[in-house]
Amino acid sequence: MIEGKPKTLPPEVIAALQAITGTERTLTSPEDMVAYSYDATWIESPPQVVVLPKNATEISEVLKLANRYKIPVAPRGAGSGLSGGSVPQQGGIALALTLMNRILEIDTENSVAVVEPGVITFALQKAVEKVGLFYPPDPSSLKQSAIGGNIAENAGGARCLKYGVTSDYVRALEVVLPTGEIIHTGGKMVKIATGYNLRHLFVGAEGTLGIVTRITLKLIPLPKYKRTALATFPTVESASVAVTQIMESGLLPASIELMDNLTIRCVEEFKPAGLPLDAGALLLFALDSNYEQILLSETEAVAQICRECGATSVRVAADDSENDKLWEARRAISPALARRRPNKLGEDISVPRSALPELVRGIGEISERYKLPIPVFGHAGDGNLHPNMLCDRRDPQEMERVHAAATEIFRLAIRLGGTLSGEHGIGLLKKEFMLEALGAEQVELMRRLKSIFDPNGILNSGKLFPTGENSW
Amino acid sequence: MIEGKPKTLPPEVIAALQAITGTERTLTSPEDMVAYSYDATWIESPPQVVVLPKNATEISEVLKLANRYKIPVAPRGAGSGLSGGSVPQQGGIALALTLMNRILEIDTENSVAVVEPGVITFALQKAVEKVGLFYPPDPSSLKQSAIGGNIAENAGGARCLKYGVTSDYVRALEVVLPTGEIIHTGGKMVKIATGYNLRHLFVGAEGTLGIVTRITLKLIPLPKYKRTALATFPTVESASVAVTQIMESGLLPASIELMDNLTIRCVEEFKPAGLPLDAGALLLFALDSNYEQILLSETEAVAQICRECGATSVRVAADDSENDKLWEARRAISPALARRRPNKLGEDISVPRSALPELVRGIGEISERYKLPIPVFGHAGDGNLHPNMLCDRRDPQEMERVHAAATEIFRLAIRLGGTLSGEHGIGLLKKEFMLEALGAEQVELMRRLKSIFDPNGILNSGKLFPTGENSW
Repeated sequence: MIEGKPKTLPPEVIAALQAITGTERTLTSPEDMVAYSYDATWIESPPQVVVLPKNATEISEVLKLANRYKIPVAPRGAGSGLSGGSVPQQGGIALALTLMNRILEIDTENSVAVVEPGVITFALQKAVEKVGLFYPPDPSSLKQSAIGGNIAENAGGARCLKYGVTSDYVRALEVVLPTGEIIHTGGKMVKIATGYNLRHLFVGAEGTLGIVTRITLKLIPLPKYKRTALATFPTVESASVAVTQIMESGLLPASIELMDNLTIRCVEEFKPAGLPLDAGALLLFALDSNYEQILLSETEAVAQICRECGATSVRVAADDSENDKLWEARRAISPALARRRPNKLGEDISVPRSALPELVRGIGEISERYKLPIPVFGHAGDGNLHPNMLCDRRDPQEMERVHAAATEIFRLAIRLGGTLSGEHGIGLLKKEFMLEALGAEQVELMRRLKSIFDPNGILNSGKLFPTGENSW
Repeated sequence: MIEGKPKTLPPEVIAALQAITGTERTLTSPEDMVAYSYDATWIESPPQVVVLPKNATEISEVLKLANRYKIPVAPRGAGSGLSGGSVPQQGGIALALTLMNRILEIDTENSVAVVEPGVITFALQKAVEKVGLFYPPDPSSLKQSAIGGNIAENAGGARCLKYGVTSDYVRALEVVLPTGEIIHTGGKMVKIATGYNLRHLFVGAEGTLGIVTRITLKLIPLPKYKRTALATFPTVESASVAVTQIMESGLLPASIELMDNLTIRCVEEFKPAGLPLDAGALLLFALDSNYEQILLSETEAVAQICRECGATSVRVAADDSENDKLWEARRAISPALARRRPNKLGEDISVPRSALPELVRGIGEISERYKLPIPVFGHAGDGNLHPNMLCDRRDPQEMERVHAAATEIFRLAIRLGGTLSGEHGIGLLKKEFMLEALGAEQVELMRRLKSIFDPNGILNSGKLFPTGENSW
């Protein structure tokens, strides 16, 4: 295994990388090292070299070289991750997949798209919508995030309530294994019962088991009609009760998003969208259908349950532009919170839906006890919330409180039958909690699994597994 | 690794098994060995002892003992599998999970059921339907098959077109690893991005990586209205063109099932349901919706496309009893074909939907060339067909033709971008074709994976991987 961070790479390694990709796609300047040192967390660590491959063969060559010299390799999509998964924490090679950004095929007969990992999520969505198809996963960073990163972290998003997460859309993968072999798992067919399900093992493996170089994604028919509704509640608790009532009624909105009062105020300061500043909480609903009449009656049914649960107002967006404005506000939460204080630690806990009210109460209690503002928002219909701790990393005492509060929130989620991460992954941020979340046997099994894919531990090591070092 | 079949088990092993489960759940009589020697293929091989555990702890003890003595263990649900997956081909211990058949919980708040592996698929469906919920996967053997077996083979069924396969419904598993550790993977929550996705690795692993002892299954709201339609076509080709047209139109029936003329005639002989004996092929559609008006208009839209593609008649079932009769006929195919000739070899190839017409043409050509009746039926909407070779195993010359024809059908499916198995698994029947289907690197990776879970190779070994021995 690779220990610590190597000081410099041997010159023959740089020369070999240049021979694989050409000099213009092997970057070594100090500015480039800074540009590839971070993701959307606060963790930073520069690589020693950045390589921008154009195909699986080049990646295979790079990985074989890295094995020969035992050099760490950190794969990277758009760098928009929220768990440190793409940060080259051990230095070495940052393998940036941004040039592999072609949509290779949109196959309407089989309802699949074949893409390279650097394709931006939003670009894929726009391309398939032009032919009446739909790729639902929609992480909030979808205008920046790359499909390869979505695969690595098993990205979710607001629409996952109705439509599922990234892994539900992965039909086939071309993968370069850490040792350089190129394999193809899955296919355009719907059903496969031929050997172990490797494709879903690579999804969510955070780039530690292989590098995905070609992705076949299932597409579904684009719903014809959409509607957005906004319900205002006096408290987060009453909003979370409404969520469980709606889901138990058999209604299935595409999205049910929650924002608490602090989140609402941060967003309105950053990007005013007319959200109700005095609301204890709001729920933002997306509904869709192929039938306008059904959409109207289901929207009214959702509104009715909200009112019964104490909503003070329910507003249905009048048109597409109001629709878009509300969803832009939702996606602005993360940058809005980031402006409030110098730093933020965003969590991504996921619990069974029925535990939502208790989770919300518990977070409120932790926030008070540690005297930390913890705005809460997220995919309430899924039980996947993002409590964010706003803080200043220059204040060590505050950071101790942040660490303690985050630990309590993790433990609360686990106690409620939930887990550390719903859609951001473990990366560097949450690795020290893996033993508590999964138990020693399971973590050990995962370590053994990693070792058969990557015997030299070159690929994105130091992540996902506990190492005894806190990366905060 | 375990070579060949041990002659007898040491008496102390029997005594130790009796100490774990009690004498009444450790079976040793010759009659019992016969009763646990087969599944729904023609492959038979008796175990040396049958153990009927009641919980994960007993299973853990049995597996630890088996490791100590290097005794093969073959887990077994209802024995209704179609690939030899539960046949104790290496002898040793048959681990029958039939007594672990409790539905432990139906949690309506989180829309999940928690069950033991021996629960019969149909019993689970009936139980959840009573509270307005729905567990869609419906293998044809659903009245016999156990959920544990459905997990092992990643079972599908007719409704998978709209609703997906077993793996799409697995939220959490308790698994006894081959070495005896008990792990819990997943949970009641919808989204998990915490470490490698082990739960979906166990699904479809054919009981080679662990024994699933508790299963948390996602449930969905039960659709309020259902309808069945039957369309008659002059040829299989015209029927398969209709399938691709319907799917491209954006309509999504729950099921589109195909039967060719020979299949129709076999079923009518066995269990008359009024199917049209002179039809070249028929398509059986299930449609469902929460809205009656939509169901009517979508059924009419399907009928219209069928007529445009040359259907000679389209009949919509008048009521639930006609509905049930048609679906009983569909599920009777396998037993009906089994009566035609002494044996049958049922295939389970899966191809991209667009390749369906070419696949059907190719199978017809192979049937003629080898002078073998090969009735074709299956889940046409999925591209998952079951060509069945009717034969007599006592005729070695015929069996040579069967083997050659089956090989050609596998190769045809792979050439069309498809695979060996869509929902029955590889087991013993298809293992020799794994290298052609997946390539040496991928099979080798799967072997390494198996070895970290099961270092002594005690659990269901000799299956799934090529061994150079044809089990036909």
